Amino acid sequence: MKSKKPLILVTNDDGITAPGVRTLIEVMSEIGDVIVVAPDKPQSAMGHAITINNTLYLNKVSKEDAAIAEYSCSGTPVDCVKLAVNEILKRKPDLCVSGINHGSNSSINVIYSGTMSAAVEAGIEGIPAIGFSLLDYDWNADFESIRKFVKKITLETLANGLAKGVILNVNFPKLKENQIKGIKICRQANALWVEKFDKRQTPFGKDYYWLSGEFVNHDQGEDTDEWALQNGYISIVPVQFDLTAHHFKQQLNSWNLNE
Amino acid sequence: MKSKKPLILVTNDDGITAPGVRTLIEVMSEIGDVIVVAPDKPQSAMGHAITINNTLYLNKVSKEDAAIAEYSCSGTPVDCVKLAVNEILKRKPDLCVSGINHGSNSSINVIYSGTMSAAVEAGIEGIPAIGFSLLDYDWNADFESIRKFVKKITLETLANGLAKGVILNVNFPKLKENQIKGIKICRQANALWVEKFDKRQTPFGKDYYWLSGEFVNHDQGEDTDEWALQNGYISIVPVQFDLTAHHFKQQLNSWNLNE
Repeated sequence: MKSKKPLILVTNDDGITAPGVRTLIEVMSEIGDVIVVAPDKPQSAMGHAITINNTLYLNKVSKEDAAIAEYSCSGTPVDCVKLAVNEILKRKPDLCVSGINHGSNSSINVIYSGTMSAAVEAGIEGIPAIGFSLLDYDWNADFESIRKFVKKITLETLANGLAKGVILNVNFPKLKENQIKGIKICRQANALWVEKFDKRQTPFGKDYYWLSGEFVNHDQGEDTDEWALQNGYISIVPVQFDLTAHHFKQQLNSWNLNE
Repeated sequence: MKSKKPLILVTNDDGITAPGVRTLIEVMSEIGDVIVVAPDKPQSAMGHAITINNTLYLNKVSKEDAAIAEYSCSGTPVDCVKLAVNEILKRKPDLCVSGINHGSNSSINVIYSGTMSAAVEAGIEGIPAIGFSLLDYDWNADFESIRKFVKKITLETLANGLAKGVILNVNFPKLKENQIKGIKICRQANALWVEKFDKRQTPFGKDYYWLSGEFVNHDQGEDTDEWALQNGYISIVPVQFDLTAHHFKQQLNSWNLNE
């Protein structure tokens, strides 16, 4: 008896027309039945934002590639997952994949990332989930070089399963397929963005700012995602949404809070 | 020699005019020198969103209460912290407090919360930070009953310090001061929102959705924030932004990823 194909939900944060998500749809269609619910416009850096004070629109769009159905959504990446699971899909998907993001979501970027927040939302809802990102912000980034690895990681995830509450954050270096040294399991590097605001004036004399910044990594650990990516490896960080700093509870209990 | 007063950055996600932040400013002014940088409109459920494809405005507003200066910002709560630290404050603040939120940020709400994301952003930037939330969504919620506890927790935090990478998530039950049983150090309860989308039609016949949902807590642990709050206690969860699921790394290393 042949097993049924897995049902795979695909989303992203660069918008439904981005080359990264189109590549992901193609690869996933080789593995399972694909439903796409992705933002109708770029939603980068939206973090885990949801739309609670505004309406949400969902449009069935003409499917390209090999997806069973595609929908664009007016909301954030997390809204897409919520709408997909509750309004579109007839059963809980076997996997949710998000991306392939045009740009890095390694290290602290995971917390600002719409791509990863969509995957984390799926994880919260009990769906195994993976976020894929390529370290190239270019719209015409080379996704061909990483297709083979995206497929391999997805098949291994379906075969092995993920623990409850764990989501995979996969980042690819900007390298040709034959330059990639392999896949490393990593921890999130302790790095951050140091902001540099660009202060300008409107034509009407009012000050405004553009947020820009410089990524600074003081964490030289060879077990980090940054190290792996800088040394030619694909990084996989298992991510969780229990944010409790369990190691600090004991110290907090020694404070004089109840006197 | 008298020590200098601590410099305290105050922000929130309900907007600079919300009674919750006004109470927080009053309490913080009893402790230190207060600078306020808060959104010019409600920014609830914005998670860790930042503004990268749009301009940011900052307006110095006439200060009320006892703050040294107050600014409203057109961006998200995380934008407020970034602008405060990089464009407004002459030195790194000794503490950043966010809130008091009108509504719960316990359990999984921490991940959707603009209030907590602002505090987490401060933590990423190396500033000790606390998010305060009251389990009452009402604009006219009773913040008087919790003033004493907000002050106590803040003073203890300044006295004891926080570990690098740890932020406090403080939630208050909706109770009178004399009904509150005390303060408990907790872990984040494993709970989630189960969505119920309200599907409607525009006057022009187009479907749209309102996101709503029901909070479901299957975690009966007496060490959770949900348990504490339901049993009359203030909950404090230490929160971290290293999202690595360290416990799952070993299992991932057993997968056949590099064959």
